[in-house]
Amino acid sequence: MLLKDQPLSEDIVGLLEGLSTTRAIRRYTPDPVPPEVLRDILFAATRAPSGSNRQPFRFLVLTEGERAQEARALIADCAQRLWAQKRKDDQYDKRSGADPDSPKSRMSRTMQTYVDEFSQAPCLILPCMLRYREPHVIEGASVYPAVQNLLLAARGLGYGGVITGFHLEVESQLKTLLNIPVDAFIACTVTLGKPQGKHGPVRRLPMSELVFSDNWGDAPRWAVDPPGTTHTRAGPPRAK
Amino acid sequence: MLLKDQPLSEDIVGLLEGLSTTRAIRRYTPDPVPPEVLRDILFAATRAPSGSNRQPFRFLVLTEGERAQEARALIADCAQRLWAQKRKDDQYDKRSGADPDSPKSRMSRTMQTYVDEFSQAPCLILPCMLRYREPHVIEGASVYPAVQNLLLAARGLGYGGVITGFHLEVESQLKTLLNIPVDAFIACTVTLGKPQGKHGPVRRLPMSELVFSDNWGDAPRWAVDPPGTTHTRAGPPRAK
Repeated sequence: MLLKDQPLSEDIVGLLEGLSTTRAIRRYTPDPVPPEVLRDILFAATRAPSGSNRQPFRFLVLTEGERAQEARALIADCAQRLWAQKRKDDQYDKRSGADPDSPKSRMSRTMQTYVDEFSQAPCLILPCMLRYREPHVIEGASVYPAVQNLLLAARGLGYGGVITGFHLEVESQLKTLLNIPVDAFIACTVTLGKPQGKHGPVRRLPMSELVFSDNWGDAPRWAVDPPGTTHTRAGPPRAK
Repeated sequence: MLLKDQPLSEDIVGLLEGLSTTRAIRRYTPDPVPPEVLRDILFAATRAPSGSNRQPFRFLVLTEGERAQEARALIADCAQRLWAQKRKDDQYDKRSGADPDSPKSRMSRTMQTYVDEFSQAPCLILPCMLRYREPHVIEGASVYPAVQNLLLAARGLGYGGVITGFHLEVESQLKTLLNIPVDAFIACTVTLGKPQGKHGPVRRLPMSELVFSDNWGDAPRWAVDPPGTTHTRAGPPRAK
């Protein structure tokens, strides 16, 4: 069947379930993401809202072409340097990080593998935003909802991904290489693929620390996590 | 049953279906949003990703309290002024806007009612973001995915909402009134409620104008909308 005659895939995951179980996926099997899956994922992404429905979001999907490979290598190089710095700054190898079974060590190993294999990620997408006015703190409201739709749709189709900022240091080189207009910016770098191995649950702070009613810090009585919710502190592992 | 023992609601909408059919909802029935629905919606919102899982998103839910009513009135006043200006600037009442059955007229009437009834919206939420570093163009990646989760979860529970920027002119007053810390910003204003009346489909540009492969402007062969997709031009109605 031609793709234009092919409806969106049947759902195998519910909406609330998908929203509450989609987590960052950084380890992938080598399987490529097939065209019909990319179609469904990007269709979902482009259904996102934007201010006055201006739809300033654009998605650059990097394939195996020469230009794409060059872009991948540029970002991968940044990823390796930035992670090496963060690993040092956040002391991933110190204290509990010295125990190979600690959550900190596991995160560190996952990140090291992620950046080492970055250029081979099954799919690399650069969500961009076309500016129609001066940069403003709320402009992200017209591009990051689309990025979230993309990650959620991937989850709905048995894939997974993660948002990174690894493009930042090479943004101008990427813009030249990929002919991204001057009035656009790269909103993030997203890698996608089929999840490899086991992945833990989504861990956040207790809802009562994130949701307030009428006054900052005052949690409403209904801000109670459902049974079975697992928590974590905010931010990278502490140096303790 | 106590809310802490109550699991997340059962799904009645699939994930891909929800992603592709959630649209801005601006007309609400007067029904309030019950606590168990708010719990599920905000739980989904707080499952969103953020840089290094720092979870800088916070959600201020405005109720019927005195402080909340004052905040609602402040934003409603802005909404009315900003819409009056936009209506004039974008010539909503001119040309096809003079025909009461045109899409432009319908949009104009919806917006007028929306801003007139803004302070009575069943639920008003201010998603905020706590800054931990200097303002940066990509910081929105740690708050707007959560806002999108919120809107999608509402859809999954039979509710709907819309993102607006109507708080912008009164942000500092709101921060004082609601005790929002100086290092936080209000990312947007979201109204929520039960949809009233009929709502059209999600309309976007054709996928081939939004999704590129390896080079800006080059659509991949798979960037083809599924059958039945309806399109629209980008941005507010043209003055034609």
